[in-house]
Amino acid sequence: MATLQDIGVSALINVLGAFAFLLAFALLRVQPINDRVYFPKWYISGGRSSPRRAGNSVGKLVNLDIKTSFTFLNWMPQALKMSEAEIINHAGLDSAVFLRIYTLGLKIFVPITILALVILIPVNVSSGTLFFLRKELVMSNIDKLSISNVRPRSIKFFIHIALQYAFTIWTCFMLYKEYDHVASMRLHFLASQRRHAEQFTVVVRNVPHVSGRSVLDTAEQFFKKNHPNTYLCQQAVYNANKFAKLVRKRDRLQNWLDYNQLKSERHPDKRPTRKKGFLGIWGERVDSIEYYKQQIKLLEKNMASERQKVLKDSKSILPVSFVSFNSRWGAAVCAQTQQSKNPTLWLTNWAPEPRDIYWRNLAIPFVSLTVRKLIISLSVFALVFFYMIPIAFVQSLANLEGLERVAPFLRPVIELKFIKSFLQGFLPGLALKIFLYILPTILMLMSKVEGYIAHSALERRAAAKYYYFMLVNVFLGSIIAGTAFEQLDAFLHQSPTQIPRTIGVSIPMKATFFITYIMVDGWAGIAGEILRLKPLIIFHLKNMFLVKTERDREKAMNPGSVGFPKTLPRLQLYFLLGIVYAVVTPILLPFILVFFAFAYLVYRHQIVNVYNQQYESAAAFWPHVHSRIIASLLISQLLLLGLLSTKKAANSTPLLVILPILTLSFHNYCKSRFEPAFRKYPLEEAMEKDILDRTTESDINLKAYLADAYLHPIFHSFEEEELVEVNVERNRSHTASDPTTEISSSSPPHQVNHPRSPPPHYVYHPSSPPQHAYHPHSPPHYAYHYENEP
Amino acid sequence: MATLQDIGVSALINVLGAFAFLLAFALLRVQPINDRVYFPKWYISGGRSSPRRAGNSVGKLVNLDIKTSFTFLNWMPQALKMSEAEIINHAGLDSAVFLRIYTLGLKIFVPITILALVILIPVNVSSGTLFFLRKELVMSNIDKLSISNVRPRSIKFFIHIALQYAFTIWTCFMLYKEYDHVASMRLHFLASQRRHAEQFTVVVRNVPHVSGRSVLDTAEQFFKKNHPNTYLCQQAVYNANKFAKLVRKRDRLQNWLDYNQLKSERHPDKRPTRKKGFLGIWGERVDSIEYYKQQIKLLEKNMASERQKVLKDSKSILPVSFVSFNSRWGAAVCAQTQQSKNPTLWLTNWAPEPRDIYWRNLAIPFVSLTVRKLIISLSVFALVFFYMIPIAFVQSLANLEGLERVAPFLRPVIELKFIKSFLQGFLPGLALKIFLYILPTILMLMSKVEGYIAHSALERRAAAKYYYFMLVNVFLGSIIAGTAFEQLDAFLHQSPTQIPRTIGVSIPMKATFFITYIMVDGWAGIAGEILRLKPLIIFHLKNMFLVKTERDREKAMNPGSVGFPKTLPRLQLYFLLGIVYAVVTPILLPFILVFFAFAYLVYRHQIVNVYNQQYESAAAFWPHVHSRIIASLLISQLLLLGLLSTKKAANSTPLLVILPILTLSFHNYCKSRFEPAFRKYPLEEAMEKDILDRTTESDINLKAYLADAYLHPIFHSFEEEELVEVNVERNRSHTASDPTTEISSSSPPHQVNHPRSPPPHYVYHPSSPPQHAYHPHSPPHYAYHYENEP
Repeated sequence: MATLQDIGVSALINVLGAFAFLLAFALLRVQPINDRVYFPKWYISGGRSSPRRAGNSVGKLVNLDIKTSFTFLNWMPQALKMSEAEIINHAGLDSAVFLRIYTLGLKIFVPITILALVILIPVNVSSGTLFFLRKELVMSNIDKLSISNVRPRSIKFFIHIALQYAFTIWTCFMLYKEYDHVASMRLHFLASQRRHAEQFTVVVRNVPHVSGRSVLDTAEQFFKKNHPNTYLCQQAVYNANKFAKLVRKRDRLQNWLDYNQLKSERHPDKRPTRKKGFLGIWGERVDSIEYYKQQIKLLEKNMASERQKVLKDSKSILPVSFVSFNSRWGAAVCAQTQQSKNPTLWLTNWAPEPRDIYWRNLAIPFVSLTVRKLIISLSVFALVFFYMIPIAFVQSLANLEGLERVAPFLRPVIELKFIKSFLQGFLPGLALKIFLYILPTILMLMSKVEGYIAHSALERRAAAKYYYFMLVNVFLGSIIAGTAFEQLDAFLHQSPTQIPRTIGVSIPMKATFFITYIMVDGWAGIAGEILRLKPLIIFHLKNMFLVKTERDREKAMNPGSVGFPKTLPRLQLYFLLGIVYAVVTPILLPFILVFFAFAYLVYRHQIVNVYNQQYESAAAFWPHVHSRIIASLLISQLLLLGLLSTKKAANSTPLLVILPILTLSFHNYCKSRFEPAFRKYPLEEAMEKDILDRTTESDINLKAYLADAYLHPIFHSFEEEELVEVNVERNRSHTASDPTTEISSSSPPHQVNHPRSPPPHYVYHPSSPPQHAYHPHSPPHYAYHYENEP
Repeated sequence: MATLQDIGVSALINVLGAFAFLLAFALLRVQPINDRVYFPKWYISGGRSSPRRAGNSVGKLVNLDIKTSFTFLNWMPQALKMSEAEIINHAGLDSAVFLRIYTLGLKIFVPITILALVILIPVNVSSGTLFFLRKELVMSNIDKLSISNVRPRSIKFFIHIALQYAFTIWTCFMLYKEYDHVASMRLHFLASQRRHAEQFTVVVRNVPHVSGRSVLDTAEQFFKKNHPNTYLCQQAVYNANKFAKLVRKRDRLQNWLDYNQLKSERHPDKRPTRKKGFLGIWGERVDSIEYYKQQIKLLEKNMASERQKVLKDSKSILPVSFVSFNSRWGAAVCAQTQQSKNPTLWLTNWAPEPRDIYWRNLAIPFVSLTVRKLIISLSVFALVFFYMIPIAFVQSLANLEGLERVAPFLRPVIELKFIKSFLQGFLPGLALKIFLYILPTILMLMSKVEGYIAHSALERRAAAKYYYFMLVNVFLGSIIAGTAFEQLDAFLHQSPTQIPRTIGVSIPMKATFFITYIMVDGWAGIAGEILRLKPLIIFHLKNMFLVKTERDREKAMNPGSVGFPKTLPRLQLYFLLGIVYAVVTPILLPFILVFFAFAYLVYRHQIVNVYNQQYESAAAFWPHVHSRIIASLLISQLLLLGLLSTKKAANSTPLLVILPILTLSFHNYCKSRFEPAFRKYPLEEAMEKDILDRTTESDINLKAYLADAYLHPIFHSFEEEELVEVNVERNRSHTASDPTTEISSSSPPHQVNHPRSPPPHYVYHPSSPPQHAYHPHSPPHYAYHYENEP
């Protein structure tokens, strides 16, 4: 086991590694050529359209000023400069609240660390049991600072119990304050938002099929009857997956056309040509511009007929509808109440914001949802506990003999001693590494199968699954040797009181492992995060080989979002480690503190400069963060109970049994006190906003404003005449609607896209961000979201 | 262990016992003197005001016609005569659905019994392991018919597994059908109800305190703002516990006055007198009528000042309000939505019907509720597992030596050998018997502490607690010897997979015990239920000693209600036994069938003739019944799994593991499919009823109709001028209300009670049932409910 010296050496190595990353970052970030990798957010928000430093052609690509590299930590004060309010404005509430998790970690652990180090270390060191035991067990120096060093039956355990109480109470206090603050931030954010389509809209699923009537008619009649004063209009959902494919194809062709036109403008003497056949490899050579123009024309004919099919065929209208109301109050009422006698029909819920919708899942029927949930929860269970089985199988295949059988021509190379030993060390781990790399994708796929209709919900569910995986396979798996499957088997055959004991005993022994883990995964991992090595390489590769037009460059720059499915579970794991080890091996706490502080700075920098959230869920993930920290508290209490019971401090049991009960009831209280703020929209709030609206801008035509907010994004790429057609189509069913609003909604100027050229309006123009009238303040990156849609 | 013969003898004894009870019932029920014990429902519903057979003075009391006694089973066809619709009309939906539980039992168990007897008994008997084992283990004949008789590793276990599948599927199918039917019955019942105050009313708890404003003003303003189109009026809740005490005292005095006046009317020559002092035992002798009149006058002065205090003092208005809306739609919206930004304030819920409200719990604040729930769940846990500890302690005190020390004068009697042995056998069990007798009361008290505001909810919670107690102490306690505490200890130290095995193994051995239990508790217990021995004796005792006036006789007759807190858990225990033993020892099933059939007849008779529900919850208990039967299925599947694992039929494990998962997902499906019908009120339904109302009786003054529906019942006993005052008081805060409605609500004729004599209107007059205009069709027994109120 590692001694204090080993830890010191490891810390030094990791700190040096982190510094190396930071230095590399400092060097790379000031190069103009990397500007789009390290500051994409400014491009997207329109603050920047080209690298700041201009000069000669070399200066455009490389910054030769060495001085800037020396100030390699000056991104830190820059990252801290922005206030929280500005961050909310700049990157949304989700990002701002995500940063608050790190400050919450600091708020919880700074006092705990001080208290634990000052009180517990002297208590543990002075006990000195392990000096006598040295011959029997190999213990590290770290263990002398931990609870293991205290003699069984010692009265000193009451100090540990008292501190566990103190830590629990402090953590709960901070959690309460933070929940309160985040809830009010959320309400304030929602209240201060300008008019949004989702505030007036409810998504209705499982609209029943009435024979001889369209879904639109049925829904119209139902809501006109049951919400006579507030119903305004509705937006049908078309099953446009096939059409979306054609749209994507046309975009590709359009892109090639732009590229060729650009090319011919630069070299007017040389018309670009291409071969007609597959991938342009063979066939007759033709003029490229003419070819693509012709292809696009052909495709557009196809699209027209497909579009006709989608719009005319009543089968392509899904039994889902976005129903809009004339007030927030009406929408709040509809979203929170049961509509139908049959509770599986007319399921109403708040509509996610348009860019947050995962369109594919809108059509899943109710019964199927139950089955899907069941199957997915079984699969997650299997994945968490049995994932080693298929990997071991693949590993047994992917050995050197197998490789030689498949590819005999490789034998001479493989048989080289150096390469052979490398492959033998590398191959068995490969399957596991590939699995761990694609795990988040698998979990996201599982969540999609579960049928959630918003990207935000999908990410939250994927994060939950990843957390379970980490809890079982990283936390428990490291403490108890063996695979999760073996653990499960062992647990099933142990008595329930034995389990915390088994784990509790090994907890102090694994402290050194987790300290190393924190340094490698936490410190160096975060330093790697700021370096963005992968996006850097990919961007430059794309820039070199793929980027043909400005639009492609924008696509290559796409910075993505914070990636909650991966970062949230990791954060929660650190909370768990800190809380569990606070009483057991307090020397671990400073390492956690360094992680929280460093990660806070790094993510603040990334959120300000890099990431670009696809959606805004107004901190909807907070209840999960809260309840997982509570779960960490419960786990730590149970494990301490098990640990102390092996220390024969049995008289302490009643004291420790009370603690989880109190923690649980605190959790229940918080749940009922704050969670409704994240799930429901209070009528008081809705009414206030409505009244405010009515007094300030009473002349707005809400119907026109809402008309196309929830149209499937691909229909936004229609040309003018087609859009009119869609609207007429839709308005045919709005037979009773006011003719004046009908006119205004049938040809809204903002939806007009000039035919053919310039390209469809969802192409991003950094210089002139598209202004959708129905979503006036939506950030321009909006369009990116559509890009990612199927 | 009991042989088949023993079971036969036991069955014979119990059948004879049941017949004896039935015979006694047949004799007693035709006696006119017992008419009010066996047919009180008819008195209450106004169908009868005096025993049917009149004649000479002896004939009024005793029926000497022997012939009627011979037809001692003719109550059975009578009980079956009423159709379900008539029962709903006569006794309410709760009672009708309660009967459906018995028919559900028959529907589930008749096919299961036939299948199990035809298939399993031959399979089990033909295996004949136990013939070889006879020397080692003492097995009964019953065991030859059970699964114990099958050889380990036998292929025959697959028959058992197949049947377990078949039984589970059949049970789920019947449960689904029944849930569907009950849900639609409930919706139909609610839809076909005439106008009720609770359809328009929402109970609002935790109205925030705004300084300088009364609760009424705050609530009025809040709802006028947030439900501007639907808010109608509200009813404050007064803390009138002290006033209620005075009202009860005046009633007592009024009763004595009536008695004395009656006495003096019969014997005009002899004025009744009484002594002035304590209980009329000493002091100056005075004229009784004068004395009581004077006392009542004094008390009424007191009451007047107390009433002034209640009405004037703003502190006596609780932060609770009954808010009424002008449509069912408005109330449905308010009940189902969140009102305030702070989710612990303005908690809205459907108001229970006025007679269902448990007034005392209305004032409990939100934080206190969380704490109360925690404390009560801990107490229930302690009660279920540790109830033997205090009883053992009491038992150790309550022995003969203790008795002799406390009461030395009893020693000569106690020392008599006969009495001594009787007491020694009797005393130790006494504490336990007393405990079991008062257990339902304790559980009800616990539920009251939990803070539920409706009698129906209280009864459901008490039933749940009683079920846990029975499950642990009757079911598990009988299977595994030892107290529940010992079991808990054993379970904590066993592995989770060991527990079903331990229980599973002893299950077949305990079949004979449970057969006896079914006969004693089920058959004879139900026969005792129809005899109503305790109410019979109490009624006649009261009639002899306490009844002074007609009103007292009515009170003595009070039949109570079905007593869901005791009957529902018992029923659920029988479902559990039937489902668990269906595969293991199918010979138990016919006994269960007899129970269900017999109990169905008896309870049908009792519901038609005796019981009188205090409230109507429209079958709100059904989700509990459903989920407990599902729980029984799960328990049976786990135990079979454990049992088969000891039979070394390990290859069957995967087959049996799937079953609980399927059952659970079936449960989840049913929950989402049907439970909303029991918890929420769909807007579609509300709107339909509203429209119907508007077209049929558009001229109704809803405000007047709702004005006093939710006034605390004791205020209904005010005299005329006082009521006016109350209304004026209340209307002062309704400053904005329509003056015409104010007039109509300030002196509604139906609330007028002629001062002093005749007695206050909640005295029951069988000949002219009181007609409350605001509750036009409420059964006359209404008044009784108020009687029971604190």
